Amino acid sequence: MLLQLPQTQEIPLAEWTHSMQRSVLRQMIAVVSRPGILSFAGGLPDPALFPTAHYAAALAHVLATDPKALQYGMPFAPLKQHIVQLMAQRGVVCTEEQIFLTTGAQQGLDVLARLLLDPGGEVMFEELVYTGAQQVVAPFLPRILPISTDLAEGMNVDEVEDYLVGGARPSFIYTIPDAHNPLGVSMNQERRERLVELAVAYNVPIIEDDPYGLLQYGDWRSEIGDSPQPLVPNLEFLPLRALNDSHVFYLGSFSKIMAPSLRLGWIVAPEALVSKIAVVKEAADLESSALTQRAVAAYLDAGHLPEQLARLQREYGRRRNAMLTALYRYFPAEARWTEPQGGMFIWVELPAEMDAATLLDTAVTQEKIAFIPGHAFSIPGHHIHNCLRLNFSNCTEAMIEDGIKRLARIINNCE
Amino acid sequence: MLLQLPQTQEIPLAEWTHSMQRSVLRQMIAVVSRPGILSFAGGLPDPALFPTAHYAAALAHVLATDPKALQYGMPFAPLKQHIVQLMAQRGVVCTEEQIFLTTGAQQGLDVLARLLLDPGGEVMFEELVYTGAQQVVAPFLPRILPISTDLAEGMNVDEVEDYLVGGARPSFIYTIPDAHNPLGVSMNQERRERLVELAVAYNVPIIEDDPYGLLQYGDWRSEIGDSPQPLVPNLEFLPLRALNDSHVFYLGSFSKIMAPSLRLGWIVAPEALVSKIAVVKEAADLESSALTQRAVAAYLDAGHLPEQLARLQREYGRRRNAMLTALYRYFPAEARWTEPQGGMFIWVELPAEMDAATLLDTAVTQEKIAFIPGHAFSIPGHHIHNCLRLNFSNCTEAMIEDGIKRLARIINNCE
Repeated sequence: MLLQLPQTQEIPLAEWTHSMQRSVLRQMIAVVSRPGILSFAGGLPDPALFPTAHYAAALAHVLATDPKALQYGMPFAPLKQHIVQLMAQRGVVCTEEQIFLTTGAQQGLDVLARLLLDPGGEVMFEELVYTGAQQVVAPFLPRILPISTDLAEGMNVDEVEDYLVGGARPSFIYTIPDAHNPLGVSMNQERRERLVELAVAYNVPIIEDDPYGLLQYGDWRSEIGDSPQPLVPNLEFLPLRALNDSHVFYLGSFSKIMAPSLRLGWIVAPEALVSKIAVVKEAADLESSALTQRAVAAYLDAGHLPEQLARLQREYGRRRNAMLTALYRYFPAEARWTEPQGGMFIWVELPAEMDAATLLDTAVTQEKIAFIPGHAFSIPGHHIHNCLRLNFSNCTEAMIEDGIKRLARIINNCE
Repeated sequence: MLLQLPQTQEIPLAEWTHSMQRSVLRQMIAVVSRPGILSFAGGLPDPALFPTAHYAAALAHVLATDPKALQYGMPFAPLKQHIVQLMAQRGVVCTEEQIFLTTGAQQGLDVLARLLLDPGGEVMFEELVYTGAQQVVAPFLPRILPISTDLAEGMNVDEVEDYLVGGARPSFIYTIPDAHNPLGVSMNQERRERLVELAVAYNVPIIEDDPYGLLQYGDWRSEIGDSPQPLVPNLEFLPLRALNDSHVFYLGSFSKIMAPSLRLGWIVAPEALVSKIAVVKEAADLESSALTQRAVAAYLDAGHLPEQLARLQREYGRRRNAMLTALYRYFPAEARWTEPQGGMFIWVELPAEMDAATLLDTAVTQEKIAFIPGHAFSIPGHHIHNCLRLNFSNCTEAMIEDGIKRLARIINNCE
């Protein structure tokens, strides 16, 4: 039965696929996830902190009581009500009608790109940017307008203004204002306000990606004591969406505050565009799991989240502190790093003569320690070689102290 | 704090959104899903037939025993092994390396469109086509090459050949060879073989959408007895993918054989393209739920699927028979309809003077009965007015008998 005519031709693919790249990050994670490796590489939350028992109970309850849990269905309104409350914790006033449920925040980003961006269009990215954002725009073969980022104060909004004054009208500006991935920096309040003003004045929407907004740990110095002044002031910053609801699309996610395999996130959108987002989303995967929507709502109904967030903040805060303490103790004085208020990552700039890729080779081979070289996050044309992203969320404090000490040994030997 | 500069401008959206349409189907389903309506409209499986208890047990087991169930993770190999076995039941020989997991078959289609189609490119669709396929290609503003479909034998492959001989090279040909949605027809074996030969000869890939392939009920006459000859011969047809593995992308789904809210499906792809599909999928939603992958594998490990499939085939087969019997009994002699071997839908052509949209209004108002007018499935430029799609999977046999009788009454009154 098998018809196999002789043929040597490859199936023609879309043009953009010829420049397609597998996420450098995911490639590296495969390499550095080998057994026995002490990894600061991934962006993984700690599975020991997942609310496994409570979520299992929520799933069991929903499956036992809700006959619609396994069927196709409309977005689950009680979950949207919970998200409105979560957003209020972030200082964002919004309504159910502005909430749009997605299959994780990555889908939110993908759907917005399709809504806003034309093939060959322009987007504005920081020079160091979450790799998933680059992957989302790749099929559009876009022109990327690069913005540099200050490691203490965030996105350099002057550069945004220069582009806009010069006539550029990107389809959107993408940023992570809080606990930036990969940089760990939070944008200061003045820059946030200016960025939003520019977006409105020039009619350019902002995609505010906020996976870590509910994972804030305060100023680490306040717990540590006798250390030098922090680079980042300990302020509570408001999300961009709290400043504007006409031009800011906010992306939220349950991946980091509950668990990644829920694959559930949300957009807080300019309300007039929600129905258009719905059309794009329907093409992507019809709808997000009715079961997951109901189970997450049941978990939130049961009132478990405040305790869960407190636990994550306490644990991840300690790990951040442990990593910063170890960096100050062991890393060379010429290195510098960010001091994140939240999230999962610290960005380290080594002395200019050092090469992070070479260091990774040595670290994996000699000390079985892994991290991500910073260039994995560079937009095309932005070259850095001496930076690393360190993750602190998936190791114990003792492992962090030990790992940073051993990593510093290699660095000090290389100098 | 809220910065709201005066502004009346709307955010500029991507060009394709100006011709964006909400799925006519989903709009209609909202209308016809009102309480008290006897609905033949949706494409819903019957929730009474979902394997709720067994799936709940699988979820509980996985959450209690697998610490990776809530984390980010690689595609779950044991699930792929199960899918290889499922494909063998469909007559398709494939390997784990050819299986790619997706967040439902809709995502499979979306990912393949992005892999294969350029903006403004060409695709080949039947004139009556699953609405989700139209939605997937809409952002590409494609040219659609229309192919008619014979209600007894399936896609008119002669027309495919005419296009290809004439020089057309669409980015892909999309079809549902088994239990077509909306038409209910299964393509005959000769047409399948010719279609695959053409795809190979002209190097044009086929996307074979097979949501209903495991829901086959045989020839209804064999159970009914004293009726006229069926339009469709009772043959077991092989999927296109069984005939070719270089040019056929097969889309599978757990939505209809287990439950839609799993949001889990798969592609059986030409193996060389799996790594590229992975890049596209990662941009769309990073990965499909590790928990769902593991829970479905656990459900399959426990050996529940054969019994589940037998139950679905028995029940849905009876409902198909009930609907066909009622159509023969009550519908006017000038009407004709398909006699599906499987799936969920029967397509009815009413006499040419009748209008399905008008009929729907009357049916909903007078008899509280709903269906989908056939034009909801038309590609642009293809006009039909006298056809309906009837769903038989989500009503009991008694409801079907009653509903078709009442629908026929309205039709006979209109004539």
